Formats: sequence, C-alpha cells, structure tokens
Amino acid sequence: MSFNGEQHPGVVPAPGNTQGFRLNHTMLRAKDPEVALAFYSRVFGMRVLRKLDFEEMQFSLYFLANVEQGEAIPEDTRERTAWTFGQKGLLELTHNWGTEQQADFAYHDGNAEPQGFGHICFSVPDLAAAQAWFDVCNVTFVKRAEQGKMKDVIFVKDPDGYWIEVIQADLMAGMGD
Amino acid sequence: MSFNGEQHPGVVPAPGNTQGFRLNHTMLRAKDPEVALAFYSRVFGMRVLRKLDFEEMQFSLYFLANVEQGEAIPEDTRERTAWTFGQKGLLELTHNWGTEQQADFAYHDGNAEPQGFGHICFSVPDLAAAQAWFDVCNVTFVKRAEQGKMKDVIFVKDPDGYWIEVIQADLMAGMGD
Repeated sequence: MSFNGEQHPGVVPAPGNTQGFRLNHTMLRAKDPEVALAFYSRVFGMRVLRKLDFEEMQFSLYFLANVEQGEAIPEDTRERTAWTFGQKGLLELTHNWGTEQQADFAYHDGNAEPQGFGHICFSVPDLAAAQAWFDVCNVTFVKRAEQGKMKDVIFVKDPDGYWIEVIQADLMAGMGD
Repeated sequence: MSFNGEQHPGVVPAPGNTQGFRLNHTMLRAKDPEVALAFYSRVFGMRVLRKLDFEEMQFSLYFLANVEQGEAIPEDTRERTAWTFGQKGLLELTHNWGTEQQADFAYHDGNAEPQGFGHICFSVPDLAAAQAWFDVCNVTFVKRAEQGKMKDVIFVKDPDGYWIEVIQADLMAGMGD
C-alpha cells in the first residue's frame, strides 16, 4: 500500500497547529550516571550535549546524542542548550542524587510487570559489526540477531536494565511482507 | 564551559565502531491504537510511516513521525520500511491485540512506582500556541507552562497516561544558568 493511500483507524491529517513539532528526546532514569554514561558513550557512541544540575531538587539531567560526522555543535553554552532542544532523537538520562549509593536500588524496565515503556532503538550501518562490538564490550544480550522469530533484530540491556533494540535499516525492508 | 572542554564521569570519546549509530525510535505500549493514533496524529501532528502486523504473535506495531514540510517519504512499501528504520526521533506504539476490549486494562506510565521511563518530549516552534492548541484538543495537563519551578516547560499525558514534555528550544537557552 502506498504511503499516502494508507488509512489507519483514528488517524487524522496533521493539523497546521502542529507544524514544526518534532520528537526531541526520551527520558529514562539512571541509577548511576557514571555507569550509564560509560555505557552510552562507549557502546553506542553518544556524547553529552548538555548536563543540567538542579541543586534545589537534587537531580541532574544529561542530554545525549550521536553526533554525525561533520556535524557542528555550538560551543557556547546557551547557544548549545537551545540547539540541543531543537534536535531529534536525543536520550535524556535523569539522575536523582544518591541512588548510586543505595545497593538495592533499581529502576523498573517497563517490560517486567507492570508493563508500559518497551525500549529505545538504535539504527546502525552494519548489524553484524555492531553485534561483534557489543561482544567486545561485554554487553548483556536479551536476544542476538540470529535468535528468535525476528531475525536481524538485536536486543541488549543498558546498565539499568532498559531494553535497547538495534537494527540495520536496509535489512528491515522486508519486515511485514 | 565549552562543549569540547566538558568532562563528565564515565564518558569516553565515541569509538569508531559506533559511527553512524542513531537513535531511531522509542517504543511505548498502547492499549487502544485507534485512541492513541487519534491523539498523536491530531494533537502532535504525527503520521504513521509504517504499520507492521504480527498475526502469529498477535500484535501490531505503528511507527510514527512528524514529517517536515517538503520531506519526501518513499511511497513504495519496502523502500519506505527501510527508510523508516534509518530515521531519528520516531515513536513506536505496540498494540497487543485485545487490550482495547478489556475495561480494566492499563499500561504503567513509569512515573508512578515502580519508576523507570519518564517521558517523551516534543520540541515546538511556539510554546504558547502549542498550549492553546492542547486546550482546544482537551488534552490532560500534568503541568502548564506557567506552573511549577520549571517555567516554559509543559507536561501533558497521552491516552495511556505516558507523560509528554513540550518545550520551545530558544526559551530553553538559559536553562541551567
């Protein structure tokens, strides 16, 4: 079915009032920012665009993104902050101060009961190379590319237990055929 | 602090192995796709790029995006599927068949206990206009722009109760000053 010919229950044409809306980020709480940042910077190559501290409320926010080759990030802090909040596809990690020191503290991944949030997903240029890289990094797999019903789809866990899907766009072309 | 001069605990420089990685989507489970699609298409102007049905496993996936003015979406289904999985900033809604018919069924928003996932966030060109639009749409507010400690930040709820933050990029420049 062609894109513009497809109909889905409930869907209305995008109203003019929504012009310029874009999905900026997804926020997940992280127990220990040092551990989470080590993971997302090394395993997924994300960079911290902006860290915001809220002393009164005792939390910090980290806004992460994959910076594309040749992409210019504003050096000036205020300019970079505004730039950050106009992007697409960022990850925000919230650190409530002190959780990293509580041995039995853990966040809920959304896949155990009660269910809700499912996962975030990275698109990668080479799925096999990514899987080999995850092995180098000793990442915890939920499902390797060759396992389960959905071939060519990887699921790993981040340090807080959140699921991360990993796919290669052109390998997904036949999905749903 | 300049972008390239900032250091954060745990962060390492992006390894070459992660080149081309991008955050493609966030998956949330939705009880009733007709209700959720009506909400995301009308209130936030998202379009369904691709719907995938998995009859054997009894679920459907909807991949939604804000299509920018002049952005060309491939009409051909396979081409569009591959294109979809190479984008940034999509929302995936998972519908497990039948949940819409269970009166007492509800997903967990991640903000009530047990906590984990926090919210998704849309960046909009005009926050005041967006807030007026949400009023027209009878959207449920968690926090209006003028309420609370964080001015110029709106939080609303989607039909499943997930929180959605709404911001205007240039109004955020001073955040963290």
